[in-house]
Parts: sequence; structure tokens; C-alpha cells
Amino acid sequence: MRTSRLEAFSDGVLAIIITIMVLELHVPDGPRLADLADSATGFLTYVLSFVYIGIYWNNHHHMFQLVRRVNGTVLWANLHLLFWLSLYPFTTAWMDETDLARTPLVAYGLNLLAAALAYYLLQLAIFRAEGADGLLREAVGRDVKGKVSPLIYLAGTLAAWLAGWPALVFYAVVAAIWLVPDRRMESYVAEHGLTE
Amino acid sequence: MRTSRLEAFSDGVLAIIITIMVLELHVPDGPRLADLADSATGFLTYVLSFVYIGIYWNNHHHMFQLVRRVNGTVLWANLHLLFWLSLYPFTTAWMDETDLARTPLVAYGLNLLAAALAYYLLQLAIFRAEGADGLLREAVGRDVKGKVSPLIYLAGTLAAWLAGWPALVFYAVVAAIWLVPDRRMESYVAEHGLTE
Amino acid sequence: MRTSRLEAFSDGVLAIIITIMVLELHVPDGPRLADLADSATGFLTYVLSFVYIGIYWNNHHHMFQLVRRVNGTVLWANLHLLFWLSLYPFTTAWMDETDLARTPLVAYGLNLLAAALAYYLLQLAIFRAEGADGLLREAVGRDVKGKVSPLIYLAGTLAAWLAGWPALVFYAVVAAIWLVPDRRMESYVAEHGLTE
Amino acid sequence: MRTSRLEAFSDGVLAIIITIMVLELHVPDGPRLADLADSATGFLTYVLSFVYIGIYWNNHHHMFQLVRRVNGTVLWANLHLLFWLSLYPFTTAWMDETDLARTPLVAYGLNLLAAALAYYLLQLAIFRAEGADGLLREAVGRDVKGKVSPLIYLAGTLAAWLAGWPALVFYAVVAAIWLVPDRRMESYVAEHGLTE
Repeated sequence: MRTSRLEAFSDGVLAIIITIMVLELHVPDGPRLADLADSATGFLTYVLSFVYIGIYWNNHHHMFQLVRRVNGTVLWANLHLLFWLSLYPFTTAWMDETDLARTPLVAYGLNLLAAALAYYLLQLAIFRAEGADGLLREAVGRDVKGKVSPLIYLAGTLAAWLAGWPALVFYAVVAAIWLVPDRRMESYVAEHGLTE
Repeated sequence: MRTSRLEAFSDGVLAIIITIMVLELHVPDGPRLADLADSATGFLTYVLSFVYIGIYWNNHHHMFQLVRRVNGTVLWANLHLLFWLSLYPFTTAWMDETDLARTPLVAYGLNLLAAALAYYLLQLAIFRAEGADGLLREAVGRDVKGKVSPLIYLAGTLAAWLAGWPALVFYAVVAAIWLVPDRRMESYVAEHGLTE
Repeated sequence: MRTSRLEAFSDGVLAIIITIMVLELHVPDGPRLADLADSATGFLTYVLSFVYIGIYWNNHHHMFQLVRRVNGTVLWANLHLLFWLSLYPFTTAWMDETDLARTPLVAYGLNLLAAALAYYLLQLAIFRAEGADGLLREAVGRDVKGKVSPLIYLAGTLAAWLAGWPALVFYAVVAAIWLVPDRRMESYVAEHGLTE
Repeated sequence: MRTSRLEAFSDGVLAIIITIMVLELHVPDGPRLADLADSATGFLTYVLSFVYIGIYWNNHHHMFQLVRRVNGTVLWANLHLLFWLSLYPFTTAWMDETDLARTPLVAYGLNLLAAALAYYLLQLAIFRAEGADGLLREAVGRDVKGKVSPLIYLAGTLAAWLAGWPALVFYAVVAAIWLVPDRRMESYVAEHGLTE
């Protein structure tokens, strides 16, 4: 099975998730700057979630450059990832509307954690589908970022439980370490002279 | 006529259906876990409908791997399937908001049934378009799952009428038998050395 | 300029329009069949608009099979068509919520008319872009359906002004004459042994 | 890295943005023409924003015809552009609901300005990724429109601050100068006999 339709479907879902969240941004009640300021929390979390979905799209894109064939397990592992990502608008909105209360912050952290684990499982499913000589396995290497991210999310979720909104710092840190472009696969593609 | 645009359009519609349902998940009214619990029914049916759409996408994807050319009848049979699937957010939301009342459960069952029949009709339309030596006809074989599913949906709809929410067990059973990956087409593709 | 991205973008917009209308279907207020009946008007107009968008997608798909290259004018003629189609959810919803009142029926008719004219303009733009020996021009031929449809829409709009809801019959007639698959292009493609 | 998935994802996001704005068009409260007239502001700004997104899609489409390979920086520059475009429904709705009040008009202008700058940055990122002999750099040439647009947006934003709704004239002027099809790249493609 080729990867083109899996990529197209994932692109569609991610495009919708990233765009749908703007519907949760409540239009200010009045015409003044102070009215806009009431939307500030919403704006901040919108940016954060936009960046997360952007990162996932980016990594997904890099990853599938090195995948030649997929099977049914990979399709479901991919849907599983999309499921957790599809909940971002929900947990983001809950966090906003409660002004960053503790439980919604924990729920958001758990959502981020679940998506990170789902991404990891998707990678494993691809490794298995491609066998021992898969390109992705070699390109991913030790995958430090992929292993550290869930730990930081977990720490952030605990911090949310204990201390509330400062947990957002943990969540933002993960975004920051991924925003640095992941050159592993680009360089792997370049070194090995691979073209799609 | 080639299948690429039909697949792209179907991917788009399915991606939107699967994502739009998250908009029906009402953000909890308060910041506590108990407030989230009020969304529990919604969450359960969201998962169920997500899995259904995922299954249809998965099967659609497998099916069109073996289809080379389509005609106008296939395009309309495909739109007919998408129509019933597009009603899932509506019937899912009705079921949620009435806390799994009898009539909405029946309506949901009829919706599932209609989609299953539409999928079957789409398969027939492809058989006819491809003629006697179509690959899909051979790969599908006896199609036990495809024939049993509508019967279970029918049984579930009757159970909903008589007994209410336990009907969800029937609906979940169909999801379960499809979640087991459909290896018919994968193995057919593998055996015959087909590449797209 | 090749047509692939124009097709992909149009598929995306049409997929969203066709799916977004389900959000306008108000979930019934109660759990009984009578509550569902209150949504009946909405359901009818949803089906009608779904069929229209389906027809446009279908015709668009057939048309661009015979188009090899596009220019900036074609891109804008296509966006112009998408603009009028994007208003369908709006005029459909207005018609529903006023229980098929006269002015909304007229507005809906004008919307249908504008889309039909936009489709005609798009065809002309393609004719010009492809020159005298364009395949599409030859395949379209006299284009009876394309010329009759705007006239029936116009008659329907007048009927809406004079008589209200019976105008829906006119609108439905246009849908019916297009639902009969347009074999012109399929047969043209078959006769000339064209493959994409 | 090839550009196909970047284009597909951008098409998806732009298709959603352009379509989602119709959800902000409030269905008139009553069945009369006067009720529709209350939506007139909304309709005007809908048309304006539809045209803007159409222009961006059009230019994006032209631009990526001349781009062969992208890197991680280009992916993020593209997401950055999509971010500002995704805010159009929000700022458009705020402007509508406050009947073109001063602050929302300024916010809209700043949003337009940010998107124009993001487009410019995307172009620079592509220049860098392609090196000194990139096709796009040569085709873009002096890029008068691209440099003048942000200045007019800036003037419009100032006008909004000082004089309110007349600022829309400035915003409309930019749309007008872009609606004239950008023949630079079309002619460049034609002259150099490039085919994708």
C-alpha cells in the first residue's frame, strides 16, 4: 500500500484541526481594545495549539518521506494519533473558558502526552511494517527528542496538578525544542541522495 | 476516468466529518472533574463515531486500491455513501443530547444501516463498471463481514427500539469486527504483486 | 499551469461546503419522533443542497478531465464559482429557519442562478485559454443542459416571488436533469482513447 | 523535500478558511429583505476576505510552480503565513459585529499587514533554500506589488485609526491591484518552456 492517501487524509484532518480552533476564539463583545484583551488567554492558547499542530504536521511530513509502504496497522496507528490531536480544540477551549484552571490544565497535559505516545506508537508500527532495513529506523536514530517529550509533558501535567498555570511553561518548552527544525531526516535524505 | 479525484474528494469529506464532530463535544461548564464527567456520554459516542468513520476511510482506501477506472454511476454511489456518513455528526449529537433516549438510538442505528447499505451499493457499482474480470470482485470474495454488518445493525436498531441503550453493544460489535484489519485486499495485492 | 492544484483546492472547498451544511441541521430539542419532524424542512433542503453540490463536483470533475492547462483567468473564474457555491449554506439556512418564506426562496433561487452562470463563465474562460482546438469545447458541444438550467432557475425564482414554496419544484427539476449522468464527456474520453 | 505535501496542506487550510467565514454570516432573523439588509456589512466584509484568501491562494499557487525543493525553514515560513490568514475569520467577524468600529478596523489592517509580511518572509526563505540560481528569484524580479502592498496596508491601518471605515478603501485598493492577474510567473514559465 502506498502512502499518498494516508498523507492526504492526515493533511486534511490536520488542516481542519488547525483551522477549527479559530472558531473557538470568541469574537470580543465590544469594539474597544479592552474587549479584545478579554480574548487574550484564548489568543495565547490558540497560538500554542497552532504551533503544536504545526509541529506534528511538520514531523509527520518528514517521517513519511522515508516511508515507502504502509499496512493496516500503520493506518490505524495514524488514525489513533489523529484522534488525540482532534481533541486539542476541545481541551484548549476548556482551558480557555475556565481561565487556566487546574483540572483543565491537567486534562490538556494528558492530551498532549497521549498524542506524543501515539506518535511514538506510529513510529514503531512503521518500523515493524518496513522490517529491519527500513530507512526510517536508521534515520530516526536514538530519537532523543521523541523520548524526552513525553517525560516533559508528564512533568508539566504534574506541575499543573500542583501549581496551576505555570505548567504552561513545561508545555511551551516541548514546543520550543521541536521548533528547532529536525534536521535528522533532511540530512539523511540529502546524504543518501534520496528523491521521492 | 481515473480514481484520484474521487479519492481526494472522499478523503476531504471524511476528514471533515471526523473532525467536525469534536465541535459537538460541549466544553464543560465548569473547571472541575465533575463538569467533565457531564461530557462523558458525548465522549463515548464521539469515540464510537470516530472509529466508524475511521473504518469507512480504511475500507474505502483498501477498496480503491483495486479499482482502476470509475464511471458516473460510481461517482454518485460514492456521493450517496458520503451523504449517509455526513449525517453521523447529526445523529450522534441527537443521541448525546437526549442521554441515549430510545428514538435517537433507533435513528442512529438506521443511519449506520443506511451507510452500510450504501457501501454495499458502491461495491456493486464498481463491480459493474469494471466488468467480469475486475480485480475488486475477486479480492472481495464472499464478503462475509460486508453481509453480516447490516444484519447486526438491524438487530441493534430493533434492540434500541425494545431496550434502549444496550443497543450500543450491537453497534460496538460491528466496529470491533471491522477493527480487525481486513487482510483480504492487502494479501490479494501482495500475492498478485500489484503496485499502484 | 497544470490543473492539479486547482482541482485539489476546489475539491477541498466543495468537500467543506457539502459537510458544513450538516452543522446547520439543528439537533432536535427532544428525544421523540415529533421533535425530529421539526427538523424535516431542514432535512429536505439539506438533501437538495447536498445534491446540488454533488452535481457541481461531478461536472467539475468531468470538465477538468478534458482540460490540460489553465491560466490566471481560469483560476479566478473558478474562485468566482466557488464563491457562489460557498453561499449555499447561508441561503439554505435562511430558507429553513423562515419555513420557506418568499424572500428567502427568491434569494436561494438567485444564488442557484448565480452559480449556474458562474459555471458557464468558467467554461468560457477555459475555451479561451485552450484556443480553438480545445478538447473541452468539442466535447461540450451544444451544451443544452448548461443553457436550459439558468432559465429554469430564473423561472423558479419568479415562481418563488409569486407563489412561494412551489418554486422548490423548479429547483428540484434542475437537480433531476443533472442527476442523469452527463455522458458527453465520458463517451468523448472513451471514443478518443484519452487517458489522463 | 518536494513541495507536493506543503501545497496540499496549504490548499486544505486555505479552503477551510475561505469556507469557514460563511459560518460567521449570521442568518437573518426574519424572512424579509430588510432582515437580509442587516447582514449587509457582514456580506461586504465576507466578499472582501474571500477575495483576499483567493488572492493568496492564487499567488501561492503561482509561486510554488517555480519552487523545486523546500526545507524545514520554508515549511515554518509557510505555517507562519497560514497562521495570520487563519485569523481573518476572527478579525473579519469582530469588524462586522461592531459595525466597522475603529479599533476592529485597525486590528483588521494589522492582520492584513502581518499576512503580507509573512508572505514576503516566505519568499525570502524560498530564495535562501534554492540558492543564487533559484527560478523564483529571477521570476519575481523587482516585486513592486509585494513591496507596495504592506505600505498601503500600513496607510490603511493609520487611516482606520484616524478616520474609521474609510480605511476599507485602502484595503480594497490592495485587493484590486492583485486581482489583476500576476503575469510575471506565467510569462516566465511560458518563456522558459518550463513544465512541472
